[in-house]
Amino acid sequence: MTHNIAILGASGYTGAELVRLIATHPSFRIAALSADRKAGMKMAEVYPHLRHLDLPDLVTIDQIDFSKIDLCFCALPHATSQAVIKDLPADVKVVDLSADFRLRDPDAYQKWYGQPHAATELQKQAVYGLTEFYRDGIRTARLVAGTGCNAATGQFALRPLISAGVIDLDEIIVDLKAAASGAGRSLKEHLLAAEMDENVLGYSLGGKHRHLGEFDQEFSKLAGRKVEIQFTPHLIPATRGILLTAYVKGDPQAIQDAMESAYTNEPFIEVLPFGTAPAMKHVRGSNFCHIGVVADRRDGRAIVIATLDNLCKGSSGQAIQNANLMLGEEETAGLMLAPLYP
Amino acid sequence: MTHNIAILGASGYTGAELVRLIATHPSFRIAALSADRKAGMKMAEVYPHLRHLDLPDLVTIDQIDFSKIDLCFCALPHATSQAVIKDLPADVKVVDLSADFRLRDPDAYQKWYGQPHAATELQKQAVYGLTEFYRDGIRTARLVAGTGCNAATGQFALRPLISAGVIDLDEIIVDLKAAASGAGRSLKEHLLAAEMDENVLGYSLGGKHRHLGEFDQEFSKLAGRKVEIQFTPHLIPATRGILLTAYVKGDPQAIQDAMESAYTNEPFIEVLPFGTAPAMKHVRGSNFCHIGVVADRRDGRAIVIATLDNLCKGSSGQAIQNANLMLGEEETAGLMLAPLYP
Amino acid sequence: MTHNIAILGASGYTGAELVRLIATHPSFRIAALSADRKAGMKMAEVYPHLRHLDLPDLVTIDQIDFSKIDLCFCALPHATSQAVIKDLPADVKVVDLSADFRLRDPDAYQKWYGQPHAATELQKQAVYGLTEFYRDGIRTARLVAGTGCNAATGQFALRPLISAGVIDLDEIIVDLKAAASGAGRSLKEHLLAAEMDENVLGYSLGGKHRHLGEFDQEFSKLAGRKVEIQFTPHLIPATRGILLTAYVKGDPQAIQDAMESAYTNEPFIEVLPFGTAPAMKHVRGSNFCHIGVVADRRDGRAIVIATLDNLCKGSSGQAIQNANLMLGEEETAGLMLAPLYP
Amino acid sequence: MTHNIAILGASGYTGAELVRLIATHPSFRIAALSADRKAGMKMAEVYPHLRHLDLPDLVTIDQIDFSKIDLCFCALPHATSQAVIKDLPADVKVVDLSADFRLRDPDAYQKWYGQPHAATELQKQAVYGLTEFYRDGIRTARLVAGTGCNAATGQFALRPLISAGVIDLDEIIVDLKAAASGAGRSLKEHLLAAEMDENVLGYSLGGKHRHLGEFDQEFSKLAGRKVEIQFTPHLIPATRGILLTAYVKGDPQAIQDAMESAYTNEPFIEVLPFGTAPAMKHVRGSNFCHIGVVADRRDGRAIVIATLDNLCKGSSGQAIQNANLMLGEEETAGLMLAPLYP
Repeated sequence: MTHNIAILGASGYTGAELVRLIATHPSFRIAALSADRKAGMKMAEVYPHLRHLDLPDLVTIDQIDFSKIDLCFCALPHATSQAVIKDLPADVKVVDLSADFRLRDPDAYQKWYGQPHAATELQKQAVYGLTEFYRDGIRTARLVAGTGCNAATGQFALRPLISAGVIDLDEIIVDLKAAASGAGRSLKEHLLAAEMDENVLGYSLGGKHRHLGEFDQEFSKLAGRKVEIQFTPHLIPATRGILLTAYVKGDPQAIQDAMESAYTNEPFIEVLPFGTAPAMKHVRGSNFCHIGVVADRRDGRAIVIATLDNLCKGSSGQAIQNANLMLGEEETAGLMLAPLYP
Repeated sequence: MTHNIAILGASGYTGAELVRLIATHPSFRIAALSADRKAGMKMAEVYPHLRHLDLPDLVTIDQIDFSKIDLCFCALPHATSQAVIKDLPADVKVVDLSADFRLRDPDAYQKWYGQPHAATELQKQAVYGLTEFYRDGIRTARLVAGTGCNAATGQFALRPLISAGVIDLDEIIVDLKAAASGAGRSLKEHLLAAEMDENVLGYSLGGKHRHLGEFDQEFSKLAGRKVEIQFTPHLIPATRGILLTAYVKGDPQAIQDAMESAYTNEPFIEVLPFGTAPAMKHVRGSNFCHIGVVADRRDGRAIVIATLDNLCKGSSGQAIQNANLMLGEEETAGLMLAPLYP
Repeated sequence: MTHNIAILGASGYTGAELVRLIATHPSFRIAALSADRKAGMKMAEVYPHLRHLDLPDLVTIDQIDFSKIDLCFCALPHATSQAVIKDLPADVKVVDLSADFRLRDPDAYQKWYGQPHAATELQKQAVYGLTEFYRDGIRTARLVAGTGCNAATGQFALRPLISAGVIDLDEIIVDLKAAASGAGRSLKEHLLAAEMDENVLGYSLGGKHRHLGEFDQEFSKLAGRKVEIQFTPHLIPATRGILLTAYVKGDPQAIQDAMESAYTNEPFIEVLPFGTAPAMKHVRGSNFCHIGVVADRRDGRAIVIATLDNLCKGSSGQAIQNANLMLGEEETAGLMLAPLYP
Repeated sequence: MTHNIAILGASGYTGAELVRLIATHPSFRIAALSADRKAGMKMAEVYPHLRHLDLPDLVTIDQIDFSKIDLCFCALPHATSQAVIKDLPADVKVVDLSADFRLRDPDAYQKWYGQPHAATELQKQAVYGLTEFYRDGIRTARLVAGTGCNAATGQFALRPLISAGVIDLDEIIVDLKAAASGAGRSLKEHLLAAEMDENVLGYSLGGKHRHLGEFDQEFSKLAGRKVEIQFTPHLIPATRGILLTAYVKGDPQAIQDAMESAYTNEPFIEVLPFGTAPAMKHVRGSNFCHIGVVADRRDGRAIVIATLDNLCKGSSGQAIQNANLMLGEEETAGLMLAPLYP
């Protein structure tokens, strides 16, 4: 059975990534693509790498006939997203890739995003889109909130350890390395090639990164108590990928065991042999997440390294994984593409 | 129908690329992987990005039971390849990715590769693997000789122009920009990251590059007279991709017309609108080739730019395209993956 | 003797490069830095790599007391530059890094830059800033027009050959590879790291690049007849550097001889042994230009490869070289920094 | 006064960096360059970026007349270094860039380097080369042991905090990001451009990196008790540079104060305003080290980020800084080159 798909905000990187993945998806058909400022253009003009595909032209959102759409990916900026989704017909399923429905608590939303939420009713219905941990809810959801890409990586690394009670919840430090595309196709000076090449720098330091809202919400809920991690993201000179190094206190072997046991049947999460470090490039362009656990020389301390492709598993691949569940398809449909290496 | 595939020389980049592509191929099944020096290892140890796949361990060639193999991709070094293929059972179809069977003339082989050919009988049977121009022969061939990646790019840019007689055959200059992976996974100082980063340099200058053997053979055959182009490859700081700028004399519009007419039904060759330049990154990780024609300010001169991914369309993708034909499958089977961008 | 220097437009890359070079110049002292939109800021806020230096704060141009300035580097955008320089006191020497005074013919300026020149009297007085070929004029000039970075590279490669009459003037093809910083610190989508990484593309194709105005002017003047080259620039994934491959017809050894004889006493131009190719990274961060000549396999054809750092020898280094002459200093003062490798 | 300098092991990256820096040093003159396997070659053949310099040809060590040498930089591999230095005339001052004389305890050397030390007498005389903290000893030393580049970065970040007693010594975590050149010009698969591009990975995980020997020795000595930090280096896709993120417990403002007070008169150490993060590219090619302190959202925790150029301040620049002191020159002589940006 073929499902008609609309992508709102198709001119950004996550929009383009959705199209790339759907291009070889067995049962999804792109029926509409919106991009307000580029309405009227062909997708091949905005993204010539997609020119071999037979795609609808870019339109404005109000030009889309949603009665013919089964599911809508919403890849719009934060705040815009909630305003748009509020007005979509109720029988159109929605996977939102923005931050608008990730936080359940309107106060938390206001704290991290600096403005009141404009669709608090919808916010209540949204299911958090970390597929591996919210499968049942996602299957029956009308609205799924895609997670932050950093938030996804951190949760893949830490949720099993919190659940299994094998680490000290007050001593979690996450040092994250993120590639440029995480910031989207936005014209900012620090994202210029001449600035990024040969550069590494920390940003949103000291607990200012918005994905901390997700970490706080999810880890505290999981632990049944307040959990506040330290989180320091760094921009590294690469295009795709997140690699995260978590410093935790606990028995390294117990940590490895908890990790293996949590992911043993997961098609996209690969736990490496104990003591092995994953590499960011080994998941590029794919929906896989590689995780490694290493014992530190100091007793009772371990390093957990997790890596995924921010545009794929961290956002558009995750979105399709969720859409598969919502539409009754195989969860892995269209997502088994092997990473591009080298 | 499932075809059993062996890959000889699976530890190199073209071997890994074959595995990547076959991972989502609908009817190919990897039955054997050889890598002499790494025999006994798991593929996931050599290429951890493939660890989600259920693959046979690496073996030596003589450990393979070829009676169960339908088709064999031979990704071995030049010279080794001919020695190995000579001894394969005659009912195993072979796609060779080395240079060993590209040149029909043993003297030409000796000239460009510095040693006599050791399997001249086989050399006669081999069909040149530029699919778009040798389809009929490939369909019925037992042995197909994959082209050089630079040679493929240049031929996509120039064959239609030579065939249509729209360019001056004595005035063809090809300036090529090639990424690092074209040199394979070999330990050479100039391929180190610290050396390549921020670097561009010409190599095999003045007519020394071996792919000139292919250009000379194919263009002369096509033109019915001796054609000798100028060919200057440059190494550029990137991992995958070839972008080639050809300077030709002829009417630019006639050149565009010849190009469009040659490729109008080709699934993998995209001719851009007249005056448009392709970009290397727009084909990365895919089997597509983008070609653009631009008129120079000087009358009667045009610039033809062609780009493809050296590991995919330039070698392993081409190999699978040929294998599809040899095994009676859809030519595009497993090859419609969209490029990875950004 | 210390010379007081002002830099107008200090917040761009050429401005920052001037500061970098003057930091270790024995007799230049930075007395004023302007940047209209960033006036009031410290240079260390705009360019933290310069924070160890004791520099004046950024100001607007009209805040500068030019009576205390000996020489002014003008790193402003085209068109702005002519308006500003027109109003500077006549006893302030000026090295302009914009395109405003490169072309002597107001019609040529209008053709290539799309608007009439607003300071045609000044235009007449300006001396073209290609130091190695305009030394005498530069020494006594009040206003020197810095060359285009591509134009400089091409002229270093070709002027000696045109002067010596050793190449066919109707058959000159220049294929140029340029790094990102040539486009300055401007917010353009194609200059984003995520777009440029792993990318190569041609631009201003077919004779549209503005530096052709300089090539036409200089080569025609030198040859005493109209010379129109073919010129195709490509953007390559690097930050600094230009490497240019020129295809010429003529005797390769005569070309090598002409090159060596032209540059034998030049401190910054290195002619490599015959048949040797230069590499872009070998001049990075320096005022040197490396040139190599290679014979093609086809008789009477040669390849000339030249490379320099666009921000240094191609613009700010050249500017200081000229300023040294204008102020009676050693031409090489402050410019003998060795390239940064790797 | 001019000092005659020999560089042993001139064909590696640190050797080339020494030559680059000495090229504009006011009082050092390169009298001899050794490179055993490349003896007989010109330096310009090994490093064409140095071809403008008038340098002695490469020789073997025993071809050098040490009676004419004032100071010898020894950029040889570990173990080789101690064997060579042992035999040098006692009146030749030596700055060793290898690891051979960094550790004072022969057992520690054996533990971290896997073999007994072969020159334990010399080891006792060697002064540890972290200039800012061992100035007096260095001034009068005959043999100075250059520090590890990672070890230098970590000590710049942490020594003032340990000395001032403002951090918890049992809770120091160092997450380090290092560029490729730290591994030298060695032919290793993971250092190939095709492997490193778009890649980030941890290595020597869990306390295996040899520079821990230096951290343990220096921090324990400074604290007067055993201090064992956690140290996780990562390889990032860049050529030069180290950026280190240290997670410490203590009052952030006290940490900032300790840092500022420690470095207030240091010419090469720049402490940024409280809450500011340094960027790796801001020190590239220079002898500067930038340090920033940021308070975490959790009370009593701070993040310290330090960055330097591994080949310059991390090794060859440090070596020249020490040589300046040993030879009675200004400590900053030849080292005030501004960073290369962009």
